[in-house]
Amino acid sequence: MGNCQVCCKNFWCHSKNTNVRISLPAVCFLWQIAMIILFGAFVRYNEESDAHWPDYKKEHNITSDSENDFYFRYASFQDVHVMIFVGFGFLMTFLKRYSFSAVGFNFLIAAFGIQWALLMQGWFHSLDPTDGFIKIGVENIINADFCVASCLIAFGACLGKTSPVQLMVMTLFGVTLFAVEEYIILELLHARDAGGSMTIHTFGGYFGLTISWILYRPNLHQSKRLHGSVYHSDVFAMIGTLFLWMFWPSFNSAIANHGDGQHRAAINTYLALAASVLTSYAISSLSANKGKLDMVHIQNATLAGGVALGTASEFMITPYGSLIVGFCCGILSTFGYLVLSPFMEKHLKIQDTCGIHNLHAMPGLLGGVVGAITAATAIHLTMLKNIFEFVGTKRTPSTQGGYQAAGIAVALAFGIVGGAIVGMILRLPLWGDPADDNCFDDEVYWELPEDEESIPPILEYKNHMDIKNPDACVSESNFSVDQS
Amino acid sequence: MGNCQVCCKNFWCHSKNTNVRISLPAVCFLWQIAMIILFGAFVRYNEESDAHWPDYKKEHNITSDSENDFYFRYASFQDVHVMIFVGFGFLMTFLKRYSFSAVGFNFLIAAFGIQWALLMQGWFHSLDPTDGFIKIGVENIINADFCVASCLIAFGACLGKTSPVQLMVMTLFGVTLFAVEEYIILELLHARDAGGSMTIHTFGGYFGLTISWILYRPNLHQSKRLHGSVYHSDVFAMIGTLFLWMFWPSFNSAIANHGDGQHRAAINTYLALAASVLTSYAISSLSANKGKLDMVHIQNATLAGGVALGTASEFMITPYGSLIVGFCCGILSTFGYLVLSPFMEKHLKIQDTCGIHNLHAMPGLLGGVVGAITAATAIHLTMLKNIFEFVGTKRTPSTQGGYQAAGIAVALAFGIVGGAIVGMILRLPLWGDPADDNCFDDEVYWELPEDEESIPPILEYKNHMDIKNPDACVSESNFSVDQS
Amino acid sequence: MGNCQVCCKNFWCHSKNTNVRISLPAVCFLWQIAMIILFGAFVRYNEESDAHWPDYKKEHNITSDSENDFYFRYASFQDVHVMIFVGFGFLMTFLKRYSFSAVGFNFLIAAFGIQWALLMQGWFHSLDPTDGFIKIGVENIINADFCVASCLIAFGACLGKTSPVQLMVMTLFGVTLFAVEEYIILELLHARDAGGSMTIHTFGGYFGLTISWILYRPNLHQSKRLHGSVYHSDVFAMIGTLFLWMFWPSFNSAIANHGDGQHRAAINTYLALAASVLTSYAISSLSANKGKLDMVHIQNATLAGGVALGTASEFMITPYGSLIVGFCCGILSTFGYLVLSPFMEKHLKIQDTCGIHNLHAMPGLLGGVVGAITAATAIHLTMLKNIFEFVGTKRTPSTQGGYQAAGIAVALAFGIVGGAIVGMILRLPLWGDPADDNCFDDEVYWELPEDEESIPPILEYKNHMDIKNPDACVSESNFSVDQS
Repeated sequence: MGNCQVCCKNFWCHSKNTNVRISLPAVCFLWQIAMIILFGAFVRYNEESDAHWPDYKKEHNITSDSENDFYFRYASFQDVHVMIFVGFGFLMTFLKRYSFSAVGFNFLIAAFGIQWALLMQGWFHSLDPTDGFIKIGVENIINADFCVASCLIAFGACLGKTSPVQLMVMTLFGVTLFAVEEYIILELLHARDAGGSMTIHTFGGYFGLTISWILYRPNLHQSKRLHGSVYHSDVFAMIGTLFLWMFWPSFNSAIANHGDGQHRAAINTYLALAASVLTSYAISSLSANKGKLDMVHIQNATLAGGVALGTASEFMITPYGSLIVGFCCGILSTFGYLVLSPFMEKHLKIQDTCGIHNLHAMPGLLGGVVGAITAATAIHLTMLKNIFEFVGTKRTPSTQGGYQAAGIAVALAFGIVGGAIVGMILRLPLWGDPADDNCFDDEVYWELPEDEESIPPILEYKNHMDIKNPDACVSESNFSVDQS
Repeated sequence: MGNCQVCCKNFWCHSKNTNVRISLPAVCFLWQIAMIILFGAFVRYNEESDAHWPDYKKEHNITSDSENDFYFRYASFQDVHVMIFVGFGFLMTFLKRYSFSAVGFNFLIAAFGIQWALLMQGWFHSLDPTDGFIKIGVENIINADFCVASCLIAFGACLGKTSPVQLMVMTLFGVTLFAVEEYIILELLHARDAGGSMTIHTFGGYFGLTISWILYRPNLHQSKRLHGSVYHSDVFAMIGTLFLWMFWPSFNSAIANHGDGQHRAAINTYLALAASVLTSYAISSLSANKGKLDMVHIQNATLAGGVALGTASEFMITPYGSLIVGFCCGILSTFGYLVLSPFMEKHLKIQDTCGIHNLHAMPGLLGGVVGAITAATAIHLTMLKNIFEFVGTKRTPSTQGGYQAAGIAVALAFGIVGGAIVGMILRLPLWGDPADDNCFDDEVYWELPEDEESIPPILEYKNHMDIKNPDACVSESNFSVDQS
Repeated sequence: MGNCQVCCKNFWCHSKNTNVRISLPAVCFLWQIAMIILFGAFVRYNEESDAHWPDYKKEHNITSDSENDFYFRYASFQDVHVMIFVGFGFLMTFLKRYSFSAVGFNFLIAAFGIQWALLMQGWFHSLDPTDGFIKIGVENIINADFCVASCLIAFGACLGKTSPVQLMVMTLFGVTLFAVEEYIILELLHARDAGGSMTIHTFGGYFGLTISWILYRPNLHQSKRLHGSVYHSDVFAMIGTLFLWMFWPSFNSAIANHGDGQHRAAINTYLALAASVLTSYAISSLSANKGKLDMVHIQNATLAGGVALGTASEFMITPYGSLIVGFCCGILSTFGYLVLSPFMEKHLKIQDTCGIHNLHAMPGLLGGVVGAITAATAIHLTMLKNIFEFVGTKRTPSTQGGYQAAGIAVALAFGIVGGAIVGMILRLPLWGDPADDNCFDDEVYWELPEDEESIPPILEYKNHMDIKNPDACVSESNFSVDQS
């Protein structure tokens, strides 16, 4: 392999154009300006965030400001916000030389996605029929964060192989699809899905996997040198894992019903997550020589319990029911990393960088099924009345279970079909994605500091070195080796 | 020292069997299955997390969902949760090559411990006599996190010298002992200890120190090469320190009385922590050549103010009283690191990796004493009535002070006696603990990425190198040096 | 350059005395003792954190503990607390060899500043006229954190060039000036500034810039080798960025009015921040070869939207108004880093290490202007009544706008004049600041671990090496290169 013809610098460089100097600013500006115009036309404060709130309180005999929805949900919102930006962002820093992109692109697409989600979800859920405005409050911004989560899951499958422009396009379509799918599941089917096992994880997971399948790179092994972690990048990733793990009870309870709904959702999720930690560690240790644990499993499979309780967390699934779900999910997810991911890459041509199939898609499906079963077998009349609000409808538990199951199918269909369409769009040669031998590398889209500490410098740079002149070498690479 | 006879790979390897491939999964599965069965038999939602909450509200004339305990405590719970998993976990990442184990084992034992704590504490505190079930709500999960904290403190003393199986066994017994000790102190002696100076820190500290004393390793110096920090591992540890420091006001106020109790506990802890920062820096600087600060003191002693207010934070200790406690604790704790830890290692044969004696045991004791004095000298009648609920009992402030002091003795006794018993159990040659020359090394229990960035590669690997053949060298160690 | 005459060790060392072994402990002890005495004389709990709260409730017909201000503000307080200690602290870890100082000095001066702020702000805002005591509650500790933020902003301008003793002195004066300035703006001019665009960011920004101008170092280029980031230090800095970004809605809403005020402030800030992310990325990409993003912009300019909504966040600025403010600020701030910072360093002799002019000073000014315009053009009568509490005053919207504008001038004047005075004090040759060739180096004030991983060892240490004796070399520097 000779030196690059374009930049004359890196010997692994290539002719594929990764210049995003026009396209990235153009997309950012265009979409932000569109957001401003659409917000101007459509978005206003709701009665709880508007300055008329004191009058509203009086009219509705609300005696205390503490009845404002803000105080029921804001603490949970901030936890969810941390999951979206630090949780997802840092979870993906595990690659040795892709931490800037992991955190940075996650930041960019989430910041765009939440705006577009407020509009899309607003049109479907929060439109005030009296004046045609979307009225937003704290629940809307939580839902916007949720919506974006589905796109960040999809980002996990494509990590390292896409340009920021592609990710912005993916997010635009992903949020749009999410809002429609969510509307069908929650408003038309009247299924419940407070923590989004179906709407967020199943949809996001299969959306990302299908995109990754369409964007299959047969020669990705050319980037193999960067397709792994280093010691400190794994520790950074644990920041993401832990903030996701700790705040998942807030994720699943953030938009549950006030009172017992939020309370129970938090407790159930807390328990399921604890159980999935133990079984993830068990399977990880069981599968390796000398019982050594694998960071990939610890960083990911431990979270599966939270995903799988996304639908049922607010139901009366009982504490031991939550533990059972977490128990199964930790096993399932770790097996996924051990068996399914290699299988999918080899035989199905799906390159799933973060293993979202094991962390989101499968546990999400399972969560949908758990929700359907819990609903179908509900014997608590109070649960039916208070959670599913059956009063005034003619549903029985088993029909509700059926509608829950239909929700899974909708999420799956939107994920796969939507992913196929968006994948085709992302294959257009416009978006500045990296070449096969240049994936998983921050160098492509970031100005990097001059240290070389995290990549093995000698093996990679060796061809550059003037082995006759050690001093020249030293000035190029601080850790390099020279012989005289 | 020749190459290892077992793995034929690392020259410092040894014959001690650290294979946990059977024992770790077995322990995880067994205990998780036991949890599921016991939860099935004993644990249900309490009236505030059960779907009957709307009916309960009506029966008890509760007008608003905001009266659900969830909204009084959930934000604090999440802060405590962050302290347990990120705070304790990252605080212990300071070792150069033990960050995976620090974060990972902390994660494992905490996730197990909270489940077992819900049961143990439930049997003692939350058993519903009408149906024999433990009824759980948000206060229970906070208490479970608290209980686990005592085991994580003990982990700090043993850091680097124990296998994950040992830690699981230690947690099983530690949680059990904690629940009994806490029952005696809070329910029998009717002492108050909202932030756990006695129940958590004194017990946990002496429990860990006694275990460490029983597990004394005379040849631990053989692992000296790994017994220190590197630049970035110290920065990671500061993540732990800061999250502990920032959220300690939530720790001490999480289960205090609604209203002024939680409010005052947060303010007092905030002030004590601020004061202990200044005196820790002062003593650290005073003790070193040219006044250079030592990261060990900054990472640990700054937290002592929070520990020492664990008992008294909800009392009317006054703002300046809190500052005085923090002032003294910062000094005491830093002196501990400077003087006592080396003394204990040399003369008492206690190897206390994280210096928990200085951060938890001593400040915990002091906190118990501060609590006893504050109670004994209480002159606010309202304080006696509202905090100690003296109405209907015959206690005077000074007898309450006496009972508080008795609580310290109970915590101490449980820590030392319990630690001795558990330490003996952990000495059984079953648990796969590392050899003396293999401590503080993630290599033993983790699959590590192939970089060598964080350990000094030349000094360690030197014997491997073929100094005649530089190319062979290069392929083994990327940063190595070769001469021809 | 020969070896140092003082320590005989580092060849870049120098004769300037950076020994703080007497001065730092002295300052810490003196000021902490002063705090204890002043707190003893002046500070007590307010009626909501005092044990009399149950009686107070009864007297004032408050039916629920949830009316205690603690439950309206404590979750936001904890978010603000994270911003102060982790947000500001980690944002400044970007330098390759100044992470200990960034996090550690931030910790020290914030812990001192919050105590002094409680007193200073207490005398001006919370003095109980009946007994002469400052009565503190949760709002006071939030305000203390806010006050300290202005000093941490100033620290950003001086980062790497000041001793901890200087920073303590700077904080003492900075907090004092802040309290007076805040009193004039909020209590005398009756301007509103819930998130502190004027009081915190404009004041803090110009205060720091003026100090940095007075402390100008013409030979700072001698420390150029350390004036940059390494890969992992940039990832650490992203922890700071993200926690600031995520929790800024809490910052701007923490002390806004209960109910709609806090609710709206959070939503507006959320939106402005999202918009400033997109325009920061756009300008960063547009300005670089091949569209490569620059971490400096991503770490800082993305936050400008939160700064600029500090005043107007609780106003009825509308959601699209917030987006427009964020849009402009992202552009303005990134341009600042590209154009203004180099200009200021070259022509105005202001060395602004963290670029606080672009992140705080300019967006703060803009925020003040946005607030003045929003107030002046307020057409919602309810807004005037509920936010500005116009009932009983004779102000019109336009006069309120004028008073808001006057507030900007006050903040600016205090920043510049105060900064000049404090800067002169800090120039006294007492404080142990580093020499020009020794800036940005943790070595000066910290005991460092022995690894050299983060600095380019070969170029720097080369003179030390005995090139004839490779083994000697190896023992000095693990990554060094030797030839025979």
